[in-house]
Amino acid sequence: MKAAQFFAQRDIRVVDVPNPEPKANEALISIEWCGICGSDLHEYLRGPGIIPTKERPHPITKNYLPVTMGHEFCGRIVSAPSGSNLAPGQAVMVDPRIYCSNCSRCDVSSTNACRSWGFKGLSGSGGGFSETVAIDAKLCYPLPDSVDLSLAALIEPLVVAWHAVEISGISDWASKSVLILGGGPVGIAHIYVLRAKGCKQIFVSEPTSTRAAQNKEMADQVFNPMTENVGDRSRELTGGEGVNAVFDCAGIGRAMDAGMDALRYKGTYINVAAWEAPVVVPLMHMMLKELTIKASMAYDDKDFKETVNAFVAGKFKGVEKMVTSRIYIDDISTKGFEELVTNKDKHIKILVTTHKDKL
Amino acid sequence: MKAAQFFAQRDIRVVDVPNPEPKANEALISIEWCGICGSDLHEYLRGPGIIPTKERPHPITKNYLPVTMGHEFCGRIVSAPSGSNLAPGQAVMVDPRIYCSNCSRCDVSSTNACRSWGFKGLSGSGGGFSETVAIDAKLCYPLPDSVDLSLAALIEPLVVAWHAVEISGISDWASKSVLILGGGPVGIAHIYVLRAKGCKQIFVSEPTSTRAAQNKEMADQVFNPMTENVGDRSRELTGGEGVNAVFDCAGIGRAMDAGMDALRYKGTYINVAAWEAPVVVPLMHMMLKELTIKASMAYDDKDFKETVNAFVAGKFKGVEKMVTSRIYIDDISTKGFEELVTNKDKHIKILVTTHKDKL
Repeated sequence: MKAAQFFAQRDIRVVDVPNPEPKANEALISIEWCGICGSDLHEYLRGPGIIPTKERPHPITKNYLPVTMGHEFCGRIVSAPSGSNLAPGQAVMVDPRIYCSNCSRCDVSSTNACRSWGFKGLSGSGGGFSETVAIDAKLCYPLPDSVDLSLAALIEPLVVAWHAVEISGISDWASKSVLILGGGPVGIAHIYVLRAKGCKQIFVSEPTSTRAAQNKEMADQVFNPMTENVGDRSRELTGGEGVNAVFDCAGIGRAMDAGMDALRYKGTYINVAAWEAPVVVPLMHMMLKELTIKASMAYDDKDFKETVNAFVAGKFKGVEKMVTSRIYIDDISTKGFEELVTNKDKHIKILVTTHKDKL
Repeated sequence: MKAAQFFAQRDIRVVDVPNPEPKANEALISIEWCGICGSDLHEYLRGPGIIPTKERPHPITKNYLPVTMGHEFCGRIVSAPSGSNLAPGQAVMVDPRIYCSNCSRCDVSSTNACRSWGFKGLSGSGGGFSETVAIDAKLCYPLPDSVDLSLAALIEPLVVAWHAVEISGISDWASKSVLILGGGPVGIAHIYVLRAKGCKQIFVSEPTSTRAAQNKEMADQVFNPMTENVGDRSRELTGGEGVNAVFDCAGIGRAMDAGMDALRYKGTYINVAAWEAPVVVPLMHMMLKELTIKASMAYDDKDFKETVNAFVAGKFKGVEKMVTSRIYIDDISTKGFEELVTNKDKHIKILVTTHKDKL
């Protein structure tokens, strides 16, 4: 079957690989759509990072590069273990995580922080940029016919935001004001999740006009940090107190400084970004306002289930706007990865398929 | 009356100042003992920082330097507002904070973060290194005769630690392991408070042998970060998982790195230190373990009351070991501040009095 595999930096090839053979606990899935994630792009430009190499194979899959990429995928059941609730043809969204189920973190249901964590599509054992994948049946979430399978792959980036929103520890969103730093795909996913949670006010700080225009469709206010004081603007719109929470989807120092300034006393700063430079925390804000900083890492079973349920219930209104391109797998390098390099801000999510008839 | 006032860096003078005249809501207190705090020493060496200057007088006291120093003090009531529960002669511990009582933070009982916060002894309107002080009667905590007034000034640094321990959000200390970074006076105050709370295991990371010896009397383990791997040692002693909480009383990058390494998954890092260099957070620990960072700033009314109650109840066993010198106010520069510069690690707390007969 066809699969797009990572061989090296800027070297993703569509190659012919053996069909996966499901183990006793695994379902075989015919993949319909798979999104390109920021972490895929990061591997493409700077990897192998998460992707295992011969010197450090993945502890669970034992695989190393070349590995099939793609971890934001949905499809239909081809076959499933007997006794599962998955019949052939059933539409499913897939939780692509790999975890050991028996370390001290998995033991307490924190599978997102498994000591051997990985992802289908990054860590070996197959991925979403291919025709089929074999995966533990318990990671397949059945979707009713009412769900548009051409959008369902968006569930995965929404789960990332869902987890970060849970990590904040805030629950009464109807009275809360939020600032999102960075209006890229991850920032935008946060808007949808916060809207679904009924958040009172959502502000985004985003310097590029293309991204700002995308964000303005959903956020209450989009600030330009190059020309506006994000802290002052946030206070103006919150009765002088500042926002309750900041979600950092940017990962740069100047944005963090503005975010810490924008927070009210006892506010919470949630880091979602993967930083490429050291994180220098502005101490005076941290101390004088007794701020809390939390870090969010992937998601767990509960997050996945809740996000699927919210998606099925139509809670992510307008989420179709996240899809900015649909491409055939053969074009994944040019119209996928290189397009994201060249026209970075134009795209929110590019979806890939091996089914020409779906385009 | 005599008062030790800050005029400039390394220039503290014992001068004659007018006796304070209590306002209607104020008690007049004859001060018995007042401790020298790390922040006093910081002002002495690097100030005026918190101490107001002519260009930036304190917003509430309107005072600026020279100001009387000393904010860790206890004494006896000379006079009190009618209707208060304070009779002349009554021993009291004083909450030295200055706050406005009507900003948005005071409104929610977060007086520690008052937008105009200050301290008697730093911000004008008198201080503990003097014969008497006039202060709002509600900030005076009566002490029973069972309390040794020659130790009661230690309550103030203990409240600082009490607040940080509250900020952690942890309550079931009997099952919790803690690492304290830095075994100086603030770190040691944390040991006493955590012991009072019944903490299961207390480790301290402290590089100097003098401080290590002081800490070994109270902590379960004292690590030498110059020769031991603090993360490995912490894991060895906690079944491989690491500590639940780290209290940073050091404020240096290498200690923070070790502290973040020592934390278990979902652990909490509480910053108590005032950093002199930018705070660079080790991101990988923060992300992969989904750590929380919290900052602690001074203390509030509840902390003060609870710490006084715990002190009166004898919960801080062995706390008399914190007092390493007692001096007369005339010697405050030489035997107080300069002594702390020269023999920094020898001392935990130096107490000052204007009463020669108490020495």
